[in-house]
Amino acid sequence: MKLSDIAAKLDCRLEAPSDVEITGVAGLEEAQPGQIAFLANKRYTPLLRTTRASAVFVDDKVSVSRDPGQALLALVRSNNPYLAFARALELFYQAPTYTPGIHPSAVIAASAKIGANAHIGPHCFVDENVVIGKNAVLHSSVSIYRGAHIGDDFFAHSHTVVREFCRVGNRVILQNGAVIGADGLGFAKRKDGTWHKIVQSGPAVLEDDVEIQANSCIDRATVGETRIGHGTKIDDLVLIGHACSVGPDSMLCGQTGLAGSTTTGRGVIFAGQTASSGHLHVGEGTIVTAKSALPGDTPPHSIQSGSPAVDNKLWLRVTAAMNRLPDLVKRVRELEGELAALKAK
Amino acid sequence: MKLSDIAAKLDCRLEAPSDVEITGVAGLEEAQPGQIAFLANKRYTPLLRTTRASAVFVDDKVSVSRDPGQALLALVRSNNPYLAFARALELFYQAPTYTPGIHPSAVIAASAKIGANAHIGPHCFVDENVVIGKNAVLHSSVSIYRGAHIGDDFFAHSHTVVREFCRVGNRVILQNGAVIGADGLGFAKRKDGTWHKIVQSGPAVLEDDVEIQANSCIDRATVGETRIGHGTKIDDLVLIGHACSVGPDSMLCGQTGLAGSTTTGRGVIFAGQTASSGHLHVGEGTIVTAKSALPGDTPPHSIQSGSPAVDNKLWLRVTAAMNRLPDLVKRVRELEGELAALKAK
Amino acid sequence: MKLSDIAAKLDCRLEAPSDVEITGVAGLEEAQPGQIAFLANKRYTPLLRTTRASAVFVDDKVSVSRDPGQALLALVRSNNPYLAFARALELFYQAPTYTPGIHPSAVIAASAKIGANAHIGPHCFVDENVVIGKNAVLHSSVSIYRGAHIGDDFFAHSHTVVREFCRVGNRVILQNGAVIGADGLGFAKRKDGTWHKIVQSGPAVLEDDVEIQANSCIDRATVGETRIGHGTKIDDLVLIGHACSVGPDSMLCGQTGLAGSTTTGRGVIFAGQTASSGHLHVGEGTIVTAKSALPGDTPPHSIQSGSPAVDNKLWLRVTAAMNRLPDLVKRVRELEGELAALKAK
Repeated sequence: MKLSDIAAKLDCRLEAPSDVEITGVAGLEEAQPGQIAFLANKRYTPLLRTTRASAVFVDDKVSVSRDPGQALLALVRSNNPYLAFARALELFYQAPTYTPGIHPSAVIAASAKIGANAHIGPHCFVDENVVIGKNAVLHSSVSIYRGAHIGDDFFAHSHTVVREFCRVGNRVILQNGAVIGADGLGFAKRKDGTWHKIVQSGPAVLEDDVEIQANSCIDRATVGETRIGHGTKIDDLVLIGHACSVGPDSMLCGQTGLAGSTTTGRGVIFAGQTASSGHLHVGEGTIVTAKSALPGDTPPHSIQSGSPAVDNKLWLRVTAAMNRLPDLVKRVRELEGELAALKAK
Repeated sequence: MKLSDIAAKLDCRLEAPSDVEITGVAGLEEAQPGQIAFLANKRYTPLLRTTRASAVFVDDKVSVSRDPGQALLALVRSNNPYLAFARALELFYQAPTYTPGIHPSAVIAASAKIGANAHIGPHCFVDENVVIGKNAVLHSSVSIYRGAHIGDDFFAHSHTVVREFCRVGNRVILQNGAVIGADGLGFAKRKDGTWHKIVQSGPAVLEDDVEIQANSCIDRATVGETRIGHGTKIDDLVLIGHACSVGPDSMLCGQTGLAGSTTTGRGVIFAGQTASSGHLHVGEGTIVTAKSALPGDTPPHSIQSGSPAVDNKLWLRVTAAMNRLPDLVKRVRELEGELAALKAK
Repeated sequence: MKLSDIAAKLDCRLEAPSDVEITGVAGLEEAQPGQIAFLANKRYTPLLRTTRASAVFVDDKVSVSRDPGQALLALVRSNNPYLAFARALELFYQAPTYTPGIHPSAVIAASAKIGANAHIGPHCFVDENVVIGKNAVLHSSVSIYRGAHIGDDFFAHSHTVVREFCRVGNRVILQNGAVIGADGLGFAKRKDGTWHKIVQSGPAVLEDDVEIQANSCIDRATVGETRIGHGTKIDDLVLIGHACSVGPDSMLCGQTGLAGSTTTGRGVIFAGQTASSGHLHVGEGTIVTAKSALPGDTPPHSIQSGSPAVDNKLWLRVTAAMNRLPDLVKRVRELEGELAALKAK
């Protein structure tokens, strides 16, 4: 595909007219001649001098000076080079598509209603009173429990589960092994120290355009519902506890766990291995940095770090000071010695 | 259902006779007129003034004064309001039940013995020499490996696995994707730095009334066995390593990991994202707070916090002091300056 | 089996000739007469005095003096007692084997090529253009997506997945629920705060002799590939992000998460619940201790601890000092008081 055609399709500006043929997309370091790369992080700017790529998506501010002997590097300007790169990738690679049809090994209950153009692969099971919209793909070994309601353009990879009475919006994607609406840890302690199982009556609800990655668990609710807001993306091995409500357009990175009744505003980001202790509200646009654990509510647009988490600015200073703590201990010991000497005079 | 009937069924005391009709159960904040809520945590006591619920489970000490204009709020007294609420929920909601029968797509080996009233759903596989007691439910896509022995009233949700020769007691529930008895990380290092796989000969054993939540892994043992004590409840995405022995009536919250040969007394609680470094004993009734990691044995009934964990009281003081550490550094610097000035006199 | 035969088979040296009959293998504490145990960790040396085992694998340096009344304990010398024990176990226990054959419920696409002697169990699905070498075992409910290429001696436990176009070497083992090549968290932020899904074009690649434990996720790559080096062993519930490259002969313990574009040298060890923040290089032979998180590159053969991780020696000193921090605060307050008093004189 000609570079000028790519730029036109993606509404990017070409620094200079170019009909160089682009054969694929790659990272700056791995790119070969004929490929287009991207620069989204200033840290990698030096790679612009050395990359073998033939073109690169950059923002308006970037400039590059290459040695005379080097191959030409065409700059493709975009307000959002990473997004341009993502869209360019779609021009060169398409994930497998699935033609409509129901595999004979799939088991579909008589009362289930499945919309037009569904692809239901081998060993799937759709139980009674399930409703699924049009254009669904259930890859293989998918289980949809009784009474689940699912919108259009659903893509369920193999081994995914939607439990009884859960509700799923349009254009939702479940990666392999994702479990929507399992019971979770709901028990009341009896006087003798044993645990009484609490019936989990409330569904898990995934709004439109939610995507859940592999082996993550969105638990149902004891009462009420657990809700994942529209457009929110959840990584692998994440746990969302009972009756949480995650705001729209949020991102929860790998191995994060939200304890029950955590609510969040729009556009929050939880980095990897983070946690919420539950029964708290995370303000809109909050960022929780990796491995941090929220002990309480957070103000909007704050950055939270540490375990228990505090404001990121404080945490950065504490962390720096902590590594000088052995030195501080020594200095205090010296001060005590000197002071004692002074007093003994 | 009349409130007086609910109170009678659950052995609770009604503050005043009431035949108000209760239609459901909800949280204090979400409850609508006609619903019954509960107060189990003092922190929510102020909600008693504002809840729209018609009744609420409370303990003996709670009192409430509502504004004259507000609807009546009936108090239902219980020693354990949360347990009463849990039992009330069962009066209004029942999870789907499964009628006996074996789906034609299920594959059951000739030598497997399955008790009366089993429901075995689509695409399940029960291999040779498996024994399962009466009233089992295997939902769909469940795999029971060779020689596993399972008690009565087993409920295996979709995509669960019981591996070869594992033993499961009565009334055990496995939520979706739980894996009982996989190999785990058992390797011996060779001289050249490569790893030799160690045969994992010992089964995982789940005692009566154990429940394992979604996508958790209870590994088998190299030798001996891995054991989960009766009545213990394990949350989503938990890892129990080789040859651990978890005492009865314990609770392990989400994403906890116990390294191999961890043993615990009865009634321990591991909060979310906690860990044990293995080859250690956790005393009866120990509580490990969120994100903490045990480096060694713990005394009974202690509370352990931090990574590496220390007694919770110390950890609370350390955590408080830590956030004042930048200030402490500054004060020490000032002391040094003042002392130098003093000495220079 | 006679002890002398075991010693001969495993190239170990018997301290004294012995034809004691060995019936099994066990830990030092659990072993019964007739069993052989091992001592690989000096911490357990005192158990040599009390074990009921009839024989024990030890290294060249260990000596034992038992009380006169006790049963004989035969010492079996090996340079690597743990490896000797692992190999002894194979003499007494063999995991189930699977005879060649394709179960009638398995679904295998017409264009798939499967080598000789394959065992393909119930409800497996092998899609179009898949290539699998000889001697494969697909236990049950396994899904192999389109165009995956897999080597010889593959063992896929139930509910495992190999996604489209991924490549798997020889002698690879996937434990239950492992997901190779799912999409992972790849999204570009649009101007309006919503997320654009990035096509994940690159495969996950597992080299020869890799083993992935239960419910772990090895994500595919946006561009390029995600690669796990030969002989590397990965525990349960581990997450390997986009385009990571883990060096050979490494070990990643439970619940570890490597964020995208982490690369490592050979023989690295990540202990449980560790993390890498991504876009960094972990030097050959690095050890990351439990619950630590790497913020940047590490030198070869270093030990990294803490979150954010620092050199283990510093971390040990910081951790020790931290628990004395409340005391330090008190001492600084006293110094301030004394100095004020001194200045007031």
